[in-house]
Amino acid sequence: MQVGELSTPALVVDQEAFAFNLATMAAARPGRALRPHVKAHKCTAIARAQRAAGHTAFCAATPRELIGLARAGLGDDLLLANECLDESRLRALAALDARITVAVDSEATINAAARDGIGECLIDINVGLPRCGCAPDDAGRLADHARARGLVVRGVMGYEGHVVGLEDPEDRRSRCEISMTGLLDAHSVVGGEVISGGGTGTFDLNPWVTEIQAGSYVLMDTAYGAIGLPFRPALRAVATVISVSEKFAVADSGLKAFGMDHGNPKVEGGEVLFCSDEHVTFRRPRGERPHVGERVLLQPAHVDPTVAYHETMWLASGPGLAARIVDEWAVDLRGW
Amino acid sequence: MQVGELSTPALVVDQEAFAFNLATMAAARPGRALRPHVKAHKCTAIARAQRAAGHTAFCAATPRELIGLARAGLGDDLLLANECLDESRLRALAALDARITVAVDSEATINAAARDGIGECLIDINVGLPRCGCAPDDAGRLADHARARGLVVRGVMGYEGHVVGLEDPEDRRSRCEISMTGLLDAHSVVGGEVISGGGTGTFDLNPWVTEIQAGSYVLMDTAYGAIGLPFRPALRAVATVISVSEKFAVADSGLKAFGMDHGNPKVEGGEVLFCSDEHVTFRRPRGERPHVGERVLLQPAHVDPTVAYHETMWLASGPGLAARIVDEWAVDLRGW
Repeated sequence: MQVGELSTPALVVDQEAFAFNLATMAAARPGRALRPHVKAHKCTAIARAQRAAGHTAFCAATPRELIGLARAGLGDDLLLANECLDESRLRALAALDARITVAVDSEATINAAARDGIGECLIDINVGLPRCGCAPDDAGRLADHARARGLVVRGVMGYEGHVVGLEDPEDRRSRCEISMTGLLDAHSVVGGEVISGGGTGTFDLNPWVTEIQAGSYVLMDTAYGAIGLPFRPALRAVATVISVSEKFAVADSGLKAFGMDHGNPKVEGGEVLFCSDEHVTFRRPRGERPHVGERVLLQPAHVDPTVAYHETMWLASGPGLAARIVDEWAVDLRGW
Repeated sequence: MQVGELSTPALVVDQEAFAFNLATMAAARPGRALRPHVKAHKCTAIARAQRAAGHTAFCAATPRELIGLARAGLGDDLLLANECLDESRLRALAALDARITVAVDSEATINAAARDGIGECLIDINVGLPRCGCAPDDAGRLADHARARGLVVRGVMGYEGHVVGLEDPEDRRSRCEISMTGLLDAHSVVGGEVISGGGTGTFDLNPWVTEIQAGSYVLMDTAYGAIGLPFRPALRAVATVISVSEKFAVADSGLKAFGMDHGNPKVEGGEVLFCSDEHVTFRRPRGERPHVGERVLLQPAHVDPTVAYHETMWLASGPGLAARIVDEWAVDLRGW
């Protein structure tokens, strides 16, 4: 089967670009220097490919992502890079046949982890992104509290999410350094062998961490594609043109097929006018009109919330709509 | 169990507001004067409640929505209010023990319906929204073509989607009339007993159609909530505060829990600063700080792509976080 014969909308992974991205990252950040973040793809088949590329530790944003990884035999070293207070979920994590570490940034999250049988943690440090993480000055106190509650403190993590998408590499590097200086200061108090941080946008600009938490690199999206990274766009959606008018055409892929927080997807060979629930209205240059039934390819603006809408991704080899389908990958780590 | 005890993020339906919305619509548009659109909720439990309120015909945006309705015994009169060319999906629709009608707006969509055993259609007319629908002048020709291909043409449909969200009711009414004049012109050529159109925003401003296709009214969202309709917000998400800093707090509900095309959700009692994949960063007035573990309620900006992220909705009776959970509804019509 070819990409142009799939029922639509459908997500398609370009096998060659995917392999290139895996290899490029594994060369820059071999083995444990990368902790692939599965929140970007929510797919154990992709996690297996990342493992085959040498990366044996993973991180995730939800308990269900970690449970799926453990059940897939990928539980060597799993980090919940997020705070969690949910008793049933933490107990489910603790019961896995896997090494589980959780991020903590408060006494409440430490107490929840200890209560529910979690053995190891990282102290999550706020390094500038207005999100989770304790103030660097609180790190030592929290590490002491975690140890007092019986947790092993493996080190620190801090995500420079306000930096990873900056367009200018020098700006990214210098602001990453500011963030990581705070993280290293906290680490000097906390101790432990792990300093975890980063993302796709700082994978080669952050020598301060022991491991980079990158997820988007393997599939990519137009937002990350705009800042000059060496990774190739490997994820597209294929849609069918279902209606054609004088000034625009409509394909069957809309707000329920794309995460929209970074804006509209891009349609290859055309311009997106707007998206609605199940439709993308677009036009081609010079008034060219597609025909009803024609397939079009779209590039998502933000990979993570796009993948989360889909049950499956199709691995395809070759260019464009004629690419041959070589595998079907379940998006099997969805939900919380 | 109470809303404040759910694992989060979770969607919660307010039983009283839901019942009010059902009754308000059923009074204004009783029985067949409303064809509930299930794309807004993707939930057969809600469709059953709409049926119990007197509405026996449904419409949907995807084949899978219709297949689920038919299997749930709700197949009296099902309209695919969207164009489809997919052979396997059209054949699956034709094979259902249900009355199936599809929208068509081109020879290609008519030919696909006839090829795959669909018996009935509506001619979909463009009434101003730059999306599907033929030009009104083409309606008669397409109806002739459909009849020549053996399809029963039940009438016309036309969605004034560019009108339903306008803030001023008189503006909505007058622009609705312009759209419906085009639809009636087309109907005068096409014939048939069905004139289908509208949405939640024009449910009481469109006397020209025989049936209104409304979906959002039953759950509502902040976008529709801003234009003065008589329906009450019945859908919220509950999230857990997982991290608190001096100037903001973070709850565990983000881009994978909310459709973002209409903007951020609203957090009750606070102000959303931004969303990321699994987080909403917010603050409260006068520097009030929530505590870690506290639950917060959020209102989605756009119901349809929000519901599509979730496996389940919880029906709850009573106010706020203390509301009692009375049922769990599967979001069982997801996908295509």
